[in-house]
Amino acid sequence: MSNKTITYDVRVEFGDCNPAGIVWYPNFFGWLDAASRHFFAACGVPRWEETAATLGVIGTPLVDTKARFVRTASYGDTLHIAVAVREWREKSFVQGYRVTRHDPEGETLILEAEDVRIFGGKRPDGRLCALPIPPEIRARCE
Amino acid sequence: MSNKTITYDVRVEFGDCNPAGIVWYPNFFGWLDAASRHFFAACGVPRWEETAATLGVIGTPLVDTKARFVRTASYGDTLHIAVAVREWREKSFVQGYRVTRHDPEGETLILEAEDVRIFGGKRPDGRLCALPIPPEIRARCE
Amino acid sequence: MSNKTITYDVRVEFGDCNPAGIVWYPNFFGWLDAASRHFFAACGVPRWEETAATLGVIGTPLVDTKARFVRTASYGDTLHIAVAVREWREKSFVQGYRVTRHDPEGETLILEAEDVRIFGGKRPDGRLCALPIPPEIRARCE
Amino acid sequence: MSNKTITYDVRVEFGDCNPAGIVWYPNFFGWLDAASRHFFAACGVPRWEETAATLGVIGTPLVDTKARFVRTASYGDTLHIAVAVREWREKSFVQGYRVTRHDPEGETLILEAEDVRIFGGKRPDGRLCALPIPPEIRARCE
Repeated sequence: MSNKTITYDVRVEFGDCNPAGIVWYPNFFGWLDAASRHFFAACGVPRWEETAATLGVIGTPLVDTKARFVRTASYGDTLHIAVAVREWREKSFVQGYRVTRHDPEGETLILEAEDVRIFGGKRPDGRLCALPIPPEIRARCE
Repeated sequence: MSNKTITYDVRVEFGDCNPAGIVWYPNFFGWLDAASRHFFAACGVPRWEETAATLGVIGTPLVDTKARFVRTASYGDTLHIAVAVREWREKSFVQGYRVTRHDPEGETLILEAEDVRIFGGKRPDGRLCALPIPPEIRARCE
Repeated sequence: MSNKTITYDVRVEFGDCNPAGIVWYPNFFGWLDAASRHFFAACGVPRWEETAATLGVIGTPLVDTKARFVRTASYGDTLHIAVAVREWREKSFVQGYRVTRHDPEGETLILEAEDVRIFGGKRPDGRLCALPIPPEIRARCE
Repeated sequence: MSNKTITYDVRVEFGDCNPAGIVWYPNFFGWLDAASRHFFAACGVPRWEETAATLGVIGTPLVDTKARFVRTASYGDTLHIAVAVREWREKSFVQGYRVTRHDPEGETLILEAEDVRIFGGKRPDGRLCALPIPPEIRARCE
């Protein structure tokens, strides 16, 4: 990734694991979502309540995601999530994630993922809609 | 889907929703995982503790997933998840999911997803491995 | 409980269980919270967005809770949560929960809990505050 | 708390918050459970898989908990959880938690909690039982 990349670290806890003793996979998506938000926070984008008032943006809901799980993880592990915006489109953007663990034998790839998100606004009828990428936000993130 | 299809219903709760008032997307994957397990339970596959003892199968961990989010959902909604095995490979299988909601104006598609799973076993060193599809399980599911 | 009592049923899923093979206890609180909300929904109290507009009530946040865990539960179990308002105070109320499972040998008590909640409003500075119990809501729930 | 005290830090994420914009309270219990485990890890107690093999201990399930919620928290907050064992009984122990946030005006108390836990073992029929406090573990934690 040649784009601005943020790393977000996660400790895996006992309660994140299932009866097979490994991370229950929906928890990985929770951490990816936190990493996505941390990317914007690290770029200086304020809380969504504030952008809702200034730009109409209430958050960055997903429209699409895919993930490839390479190795399992368990409690006691610390995971490093590298996150970047890989592509800016007109009304959506692509975020990429690479989750690794530092093991005695080197860096282990745990999973790779990529999602498409929008800057979500609320229409008058309360339904969610995709806003054009706000230039103020894009400028901070490049 | 012309294959055996199971429907698993989910009530969306207040705590499943984020500050934007809509389902926090990792929760959708939790429900897909429950639907995947219910598919096997409905086919008569026993608890994984039992298959661990009889077949060495400790569960069906994911190796790959993709999802497309079409509409948002919120608390009070009841979602219907139709799940089927779309393909049996040598050491993995593809499960497909279609999540809908019955609205006054008809059936609304909320999301579609597809994942690749394995029948997981434990190697002597404790690491997870993919077992050949157990014929006893496949026979129950077709 | 001689008060109006609602029963809310929960299926325990694989992902709700921890590496010891039993429900990870924070999930029980998630179900109690859902049962609390279903109590109000069953009494005809609308979504909190609506009560926010009509009564200023944004939800029923907890101020206090206690729980006693009697038996473990695991995936495949169906739990029955009986919930009632045990006491109405001036600016808070006490909700009680009894969680059971129907076993071959009879009804098994899984846990008992009791919490104190408020009808939460937002102060001008955005902070949460406790509103007096709205008579419209109390009347529906008795 | 005059006993050995460990501090466990938590970042509150967007997905930890509910439609009212504040932490959904079951998530607090998830963090307390992680703090409880970190207390033992910090004292040198190995993973439960290992203690299962050496001492028969599969974890520290709850039998009782109570919590008092003083202030709300939201995403962007960092919480500090101070955790200690307050009492060792014959077959259970009491763990106490104090959750604070450093605010411009000083330290803010978010919640206080106390739970009773056991060192859980498995009986021959698979049911959970309370083991006498293992002296090896207690010695490490005092």
